[in-house]
Amino acid sequence: MFIAMNRFKVLKDAADAFEQRWLSRESYLHELEGFLEFHMLRGPEREDHILYSSHTLWASKANFEAWTRSEQFRSSHTRASTGDNKPMTLGHPEFEGFEVIQTIGPALKAAE
Amino acid sequence: MFIAMNRFKVLKDAADAFEQRWLSRESYLHELEGFLEFHMLRGPEREDHILYSSHTLWASKANFEAWTRSEQFRSSHTRASTGDNKPMTLGHPEFEGFEVIQTIGPALKAAE
Repeated sequence: MFIAMNRFKVLKDAADAFEQRWLSRESYLHELEGFLEFHMLRGPEREDHILYSSHTLWASKANFEAWTRSEQFRSSHTRASTGDNKPMTLGHPEFEGFEVIQTIGPALKAAE
Repeated sequence: MFIAMNRFKVLKDAADAFEQRWLSRESYLHELEGFLEFHMLRGPEREDHILYSSHTLWASKANFEAWTRSEQFRSSHTRASTGDNKPMTLGHPEFEGFEVIQTIGPALKAAE
């Protein structure tokens, strides 16, 4: 499994608008092969921002890479860059990709 | 839901030992109320380290906080600090806690 995260440092007075933009968008992830689950996460509040992270679980890194080349990816990123241009974040989102090397669930005690 | 992450900057020549330590440990998370799932993640390789992140999903932040006060937490952290003392990481792990504000699955298109 592969987890793709994007970390956003959101200006405090833009946090509500940032959440609304995410919660109200159309998502096409479920159309893509290997898509397992998406979470939007609100993290710690720092002095000048609140950390948010998007968090998408894919069956494999190859599935994630196929998504970045897809029509759905292009259209979602076109939509994200339209609308009002007031900056909501400090800098650009920071991408981090992770391979899952161990999974422990409540039922199965330790398995990959 | 609540996701607790610890980010570890692991020295490159210690990465195998770091993975082995995690993969071979006993975990008691499944004994705790509200524990949903644990993942150990290997992230991007940077100039002087490889980023790893532990990633524990809890039903609520309160369940996570109860774990940090539990006997299981104390005993796992006692074990982690014994053994060979050669440092495997740059600095201490960095903790970040996240509230899940949106979930999208492949079946249910958008739900909390």
